[in-house]
Amino acid sequence: MNPIQDLLKQFNHALGLLELPDGPKELYDPIKYTLDNGGKRMRPLLVLLGCKVFSEDVSQALKPAMGIELFHNFTLLHDDIMDEAPLRRGNPSVYKKWNSNIAILSGDAMIIKAYQLLVETRKDALSGVLIEFNRTALEVCEGQQLDMNFESRDDVSLDEYLQMIGLKTAVLLATSLKIGAIIGGANSEQANLLYNFGLNTGIAFQLQDDILDVYGESAKVGKQKGGDIISNKKTFLLLKALDLANQEKSLELNVWLQSNASTEKVAAVTAIYNQLGVRQLAEEKMWDYYNSGMASLEKVNGNAAWVTTLKQFSNDLMHREH
Amino acid sequence: MNPIQDLLKQFNHALGLLELPDGPKELYDPIKYTLDNGGKRMRPLLVLLGCKVFSEDVSQALKPAMGIELFHNFTLLHDDIMDEAPLRRGNPSVYKKWNSNIAILSGDAMIIKAYQLLVETRKDALSGVLIEFNRTALEVCEGQQLDMNFESRDDVSLDEYLQMIGLKTAVLLATSLKIGAIIGGANSEQANLLYNFGLNTGIAFQLQDDILDVYGESAKVGKQKGGDIISNKKTFLLLKALDLANQEKSLELNVWLQSNASTEKVAAVTAIYNQLGVRQLAEEKMWDYYNSGMASLEKVNGNAAWVTTLKQFSNDLMHREH
Repeated sequence: MNPIQDLLKQFNHALGLLELPDGPKELYDPIKYTLDNGGKRMRPLLVLLGCKVFSEDVSQALKPAMGIELFHNFTLLHDDIMDEAPLRRGNPSVYKKWNSNIAILSGDAMIIKAYQLLVETRKDALSGVLIEFNRTALEVCEGQQLDMNFESRDDVSLDEYLQMIGLKTAVLLATSLKIGAIIGGANSEQANLLYNFGLNTGIAFQLQDDILDVYGESAKVGKQKGGDIISNKKTFLLLKALDLANQEKSLELNVWLQSNASTEKVAAVTAIYNQLGVRQLAEEKMWDYYNSGMASLEKVNGNAAWVTTLKQFSNDLMHREH
Repeated sequence: MNPIQDLLKQFNHALGLLELPDGPKELYDPIKYTLDNGGKRMRPLLVLLGCKVFSEDVSQALKPAMGIELFHNFTLLHDDIMDEAPLRRGNPSVYKKWNSNIAILSGDAMIIKAYQLLVETRKDALSGVLIEFNRTALEVCEGQQLDMNFESRDDVSLDEYLQMIGLKTAVLLATSLKIGAIIGGANSEQANLLYNFGLNTGIAFQLQDDILDVYGESAKVGKQKGGDIISNKKTFLLLKALDLANQEKSLELNVWLQSNASTEKVAAVTAIYNQLGVRQLAEEKMWDYYNSGMASLEKVNGNAAWVTTLKQFSNDLMHREH
């Protein structure tokens, strides 16, 4: 078993032992349902990996790792109400399976439960962990608000987009690593190096998501190819295309943006992307962030084997095809 | 200035200095709006009073007191969505003034901000404060869920009702006092005495609310007399009446429960309450809880002047007419 699979197994075992009260069942059943609905467990893995770089013993990091996974799932639960998303990982989202009120309140209970787990760690690490987590949790809310604001704005800049994906997804990945490092006993300089590694590679992964949505192997994606194009989602590709298009191309692109979902729409917008070369520009940006993250990781002065594991883990993620 | 007014002034001054980020404004404006919308600041006052009983210095309790006030307002913000309440303290509720999505997400940011303030206290009190707060915050969610469940149930027992009001309102009052006591340096036995005082008097205040809604001076209430009767709210009075009514009275009561809002409905249900003597039974229950709370307070071994202030504060609340 490779070290990642081993940590994942440890985490899933601990999560399986998590006890929630029996009632009221309308409050706790949606939490159980959400946690049973899978997920890659990326954030708790990063907590454990961040800890491993500085300490062989991860026992004090397991509960905080669970806390961060619960927090992440809390954000998804509430986001699904706001985005009116009927499905989550192929199953009905909580607000669809139950209703909005139950989704609001069970989400609230879930973030509290997240805090309850987060604070179960070494007392001398507690204050640092909480400061880090609280700042990040607020940033994640800011990212979601910006994302919602972008839907009705037609003047979103590329810098604003990069800021938004940083807040909405990358900071939590970064903080997961940093919290693991703090629990593992890292000093603040070392912990910040892991944070910067997580932040930059996190933005790279999100840019990769944008690219794979259009250029990935749809069979492996398990969802409709070009879903972002169909929903007019303001991705890096679309914003860059709007930025680069001359008057004629811009008109053509806008006509397609106003048209209904169709395979023609996906093909036509993809063709415009190809003509403008935005895939290449997105990939360049992605590798800039990735390399910047890797440069931070290179400076980390911890257990060399675990640093290599982290490097390999990121490398595998960057070479996925879906 | 009496000691309560003095503490309130200190608290409001500190709260006025609270800085929130400028943007995204959709996220932070509703938080500012909610905090500017007043409220009695009962919970933060209890934090400061709980601290004063054991320590003259309340500087380490001010931020946690703000955290608890933010948490309380977070619950109101989300409750107003769930209860479809258009008004809060006479002004549009957040979900009405903005929309549900903004109310969900700004509420989420508000509970995180609450935690950020809560943890700004003495490091050696931090763990105790968090354990206490997290358990209570979950209980408050459980209370709200039970309250929503009761709306569609017609077999709610008096014990279930007392459990629900305990969870929904009294535990947060109790924990406010206990957290103050912990920060003030109380041992766990002393802190628990204050908790029991807060829990029991908190339930007494809620029973008093039920009674005042029907028998209070409506001019001072500032809201429609008999509002609970009009909305068929399952209060102690109604549940006790349903419990005591013979077949004939029960039929009469149920006819009124199924009728539309009217002054006749309020008068008729009040008449049934009077015939069954439920006001007196509710008052007896209220005083049982109140006296039980006071018995705990009597055992507290702290600063006598502040214990007296707490006693006077509760006494004043019990003799309000609205």
